[in-house]
Amino acid sequence: MTIQAQRPRGRRPGRTDTKASIQAAALTLFSELGYEKVSLRAIARAADVDPALIHHYFDNKADLFSRSVLDLPLDADAIVREILDGPTDRIGERTVSAFLDAWDRPGAGDRFNAMLRAAVTDPHARRPLSEFMTKEVLIKVAESLGHPNARLRAQLAVAQLLGLALCRDIFELPGLVKARNPVLVRSLGRAMQALLVDQW
Amino acid sequence: MTIQAQRPRGRRPGRTDTKASIQAAALTLFSELGYEKVSLRAIARAADVDPALIHHYFDNKADLFSRSVLDLPLDADAIVREILDGPTDRIGERTVSAFLDAWDRPGAGDRFNAMLRAAVTDPHARRPLSEFMTKEVLIKVAESLGHPNARLRAQLAVAQLLGLALCRDIFELPGLVKARNPVLVRSLGRAMQALLVDQW
Repeated sequence: MTIQAQRPRGRRPGRTDTKASIQAAALTLFSELGYEKVSLRAIARAADVDPALIHHYFDNKADLFSRSVLDLPLDADAIVREILDGPTDRIGERTVSAFLDAWDRPGAGDRFNAMLRAAVTDPHARRPLSEFMTKEVLIKVAESLGHPNARLRAQLAVAQLLGLALCRDIFELPGLVKARNPVLVRSLGRAMQALLVDQW
Repeated sequence: MTIQAQRPRGRRPGRTDTKASIQAAALTLFSELGYEKVSLRAIARAADVDPALIHHYFDNKADLFSRSVLDLPLDADAIVREILDGPTDRIGERTVSAFLDAWDRPGAGDRFNAMLRAAVTDPHARRPLSEFMTKEVLIKVAESLGHPNARLRAQLAVAQLLGLALCRDIFELPGLVKARNPVLVRSLGRAMQALLVDQW
């Protein structure tokens, strides 16, 4: 899991406000419409800024999503590369490990859980996190392995990861709370391997 | 998945009320305390009936739980036998199949989803379903295979099953909604096999 380098802070007055208003518009639109249906153009329009300004502050849609909704700078492309870089028979383990790294970063877990709770209760807010995980990370992993059913595989993988978050962090099932990450990576990694990599 | 035979209806006046008051007390206590911490004795006390009466109407705690909380007669022991009866290398598939059968029974899905939503939002109501699945079904499967870490395996399996329910039925991820049960059984069955049966 890669944390992007901090961008240089702007000195021009109003610059922070512009960035903040882009982030606020992004948070609103992603929460209302999910991840896939929102375009950078629509965010620019809602924030009343020139679309080029979004590219000035954010690398791409995934970067804007992670910095506005997750409040956590995640480089999705780097995560994909980390998962794929290494022996194929451990892709499942590296996938589970990457997500546990993200969740267990200070402050991130509370944020993820709040999103998960909101997603369950508010039908309008339910898909951004699962769509982001699917589209920016897991579908790319499955596609790179040449699977025609990459979308289904990615969504099965999302279900497994969110099931873990739900049962460990919200329901607090004691065996999962106590389990150390290497044990979770080993056990869930094999299950993830079956979902993402194995033939079926 | 086995549906228990209907019991003969009582003719004695007040009999239905007694049964209903036991079920109401059970629903309240299981929702407040989870599955494991509630005893039949405590339910009898809350319903103000003799504990022997509970055994008159219900086989055991699992039966009372399924008929009061799930509102669905499930014979947990029969489900365990069905999962274990057959080749060991397909235990994962039979486990996924058994749960899909239960969820997809008419009326059951809405009930499960309502429980899942309530469990996420109300911290007092969060564990009965996952504890029931763990203790009455999945831990027995894992123990019968001789695994010392049966509880952890059972909770990992619960996480996978509830993750599927969450992402298919509440978040409605399109690939999962469209997937037919035999495809889910085949794909998730292998993952479940890794969690419940394989060495790790």
